[in-house]
Amino acid sequence: MTIITLTTDFGLSDGYVGIMKGVILGIAADVQLVDLSHQIAPQDVRQGSFVLGNAVPYFPKGTVHLAVVDPGVGSSRRPLLVTTPEASFVGPDNGLFTFALTRSEARAWVLDRPRYWLPAISRTFHGRDIFAPVAAHLARGVPPEELGSPVSDAIRLEPLLPQRQGNRHILGHVMHIDRFGNLITNVPAAWLVDGDWACEIAGHRIPHISETYSAAQAGELLALISSSGMLEVAVRNGSAARLLGVGAGQTVHLWKG
Amino acid sequence: MTIITLTTDFGLSDGYVGIMKGVILGIAADVQLVDLSHQIAPQDVRQGSFVLGNAVPYFPKGTVHLAVVDPGVGSSRRPLLVTTPEASFVGPDNGLFTFALTRSEARAWVLDRPRYWLPAISRTFHGRDIFAPVAAHLARGVPPEELGSPVSDAIRLEPLLPQRQGNRHILGHVMHIDRFGNLITNVPAAWLVDGDWACEIAGHRIPHISETYSAAQAGELLALISSSGMLEVAVRNGSAARLLGVGAGQTVHLWKG
Amino acid sequence: MTIITLTTDFGLSDGYVGIMKGVILGIAADVQLVDLSHQIAPQDVRQGSFVLGNAVPYFPKGTVHLAVVDPGVGSSRRPLLVTTPEASFVGPDNGLFTFALTRSEARAWVLDRPRYWLPAISRTFHGRDIFAPVAAHLARGVPPEELGSPVSDAIRLEPLLPQRQGNRHILGHVMHIDRFGNLITNVPAAWLVDGDWACEIAGHRIPHISETYSAAQAGELLALISSSGMLEVAVRNGSAARLLGVGAGQTVHLWKG
Repeated sequence: MTIITLTTDFGLSDGYVGIMKGVILGIAADVQLVDLSHQIAPQDVRQGSFVLGNAVPYFPKGTVHLAVVDPGVGSSRRPLLVTTPEASFVGPDNGLFTFALTRSEARAWVLDRPRYWLPAISRTFHGRDIFAPVAAHLARGVPPEELGSPVSDAIRLEPLLPQRQGNRHILGHVMHIDRFGNLITNVPAAWLVDGDWACEIAGHRIPHISETYSAAQAGELLALISSSGMLEVAVRNGSAARLLGVGAGQTVHLWKG
Repeated sequence: MTIITLTTDFGLSDGYVGIMKGVILGIAADVQLVDLSHQIAPQDVRQGSFVLGNAVPYFPKGTVHLAVVDPGVGSSRRPLLVTTPEASFVGPDNGLFTFALTRSEARAWVLDRPRYWLPAISRTFHGRDIFAPVAAHLARGVPPEELGSPVSDAIRLEPLLPQRQGNRHILGHVMHIDRFGNLITNVPAAWLVDGDWACEIAGHRIPHISETYSAAQAGELLALISSSGMLEVAVRNGSAARLLGVGAGQTVHLWKG
Repeated sequence: MTIITLTTDFGLSDGYVGIMKGVILGIAADVQLVDLSHQIAPQDVRQGSFVLGNAVPYFPKGTVHLAVVDPGVGSSRRPLLVTTPEASFVGPDNGLFTFALTRSEARAWVLDRPRYWLPAISRTFHGRDIFAPVAAHLARGVPPEELGSPVSDAIRLEPLLPQRQGNRHILGHVMHIDRFGNLITNVPAAWLVDGDWACEIAGHRIPHISETYSAAQAGELLALISSSGMLEVAVRNGSAARLLGVGAGQTVHLWKG
């Protein structure tokens, strides 16, 4: 059973995700469907890319990832397929698959074979009309070169990169705020291994990096390494996002003591 | 693998939907379960019917649609099975399946064979006790006439129909507000093919019907054809529902210029 | 196909649940995955236990229940496996599985065999690194004694028990508030079979226990037997939680008239 994951900004109330699944199952009856998130902030391609990119390493080889965060639907933005040795990605060519495209083994195809789409293509719901059927055909074994034409200029998002300033200073950013209000940054754990680092965010100082949530008192701010291996700012039994009043993009400073 | 879809107003926090799936899988272990929506507004039969009716055409032949928006649970309202050549529908007899019942090929049965239900029937959760087991037995191939007795008076909702007033004027209604705040109306695209139509809603004028969202500026109101083939009022990168302060039932006027 | 259910406080927006499913499917490709709830209030072990315990009886024998409401992740709290004749439970040793542990047939194991875990164990996401892979190995038939070491001191929550005071008075508590605002108490229907009981909650008197929601007028408070066989306080077509302004733990008094 091939796995198809779904990541969208459609929410769960309108039935749009279910409709895509109906289309998929009409083509590939025995796939395993897995929802990653349908609560990506509307049209927030960067957030969609972050959530999907985090999940990809935990899926078995051969998984097809269908993602639709698509502010340009109906315009001239191209429908895209990206493959890596481990996985395939189907969705709009708007940077959603940047994390895959930056790998040297990645290959990309523009989807230009309407015989693998639904017969009628709307201007507003390519998730249903193009991406879901293509993902299903991929899961059934149709090769990429049947589904599209190779391209080398697939769109990549400008990465928001952390910066090392000398040996003792790092400037990072909040990339994602999770459901608990934890702030996940782009500063990798590997940069913080030697020495004792302190952290400053939104005027609050955190004197060192803890091992676990339970190192702090309830309601207290702490910094630790997130489950994805990045610096995370959290409040034990609380919400760092609410306490600090910050959002994605917020800068974080680190100093080695 | 037969598909069973689920549409309810149960939300996703209490485990009620999971309980129905447990009951189904205890009877029919190898079905494909697909959630359409569990965020129908509490007891809003019309909205449930709209969301389900929109999704049905995208599922393969033989799909069983289980739907529970059931303000009359425990009263004398009847449990119902409706079949069409393509699909089956299981749920309360309260109009939820109007879109299927209005087809000439539709047939309806009152579910009156307790041997296909759970042994104990609560007064408040027929989704678990009656509808889930009946849907599972249907998926396993038990014929409708085993599960119930034919009826011809299944309840239909009074449809909210758009009206043509001469050749140059249409009166329609907002049927659904989606997660993006887009207003989906009951005016079909087929009524708007010839000529240049203008639209008025809640005191706002939209001079013509656009092809795509990207035809408007960010924050600007536009009208276009929705993915389900109906007139839709939207705000590019925003919420038309919030901008206009309107809900389902709101009237929309159209004039041919 | 073995069923694995998932119950967490992770929410549905961040992809964490999908990541656990990816891990499971990488080990056991053909399981049926069923979400019970991912909207348990953050770190509310008692609520997680209530929602899971309610659902368990409706799943077929052999189901594996994976539950992660885990305020102590990364501390010394133990990872746990509990089995009963009908089902298995995998998650933190913090009382989440009290309803199973109180059964005389229950057996418990501390999970201490890292060869059944992911290669790298984070300090913050044991759902992904330990519990998901162990649940998948269980579903594939690995016996409990391979996965851990027997223990007899697994943690149980202090139960919040209803009290009978003589023959004519019962003191109970609200255990759960569902999505409709219905208040589910811990007073079993079996205690209310003989005589006519009246109910008092938050200064409001309900003169008797009704059969169905439709016994009340819209907006009116009523008491009835919930779908799980417990006293429930509800408002017809409304929210009892909002009307009364109460939460879980609220006391309920009953008198026999």
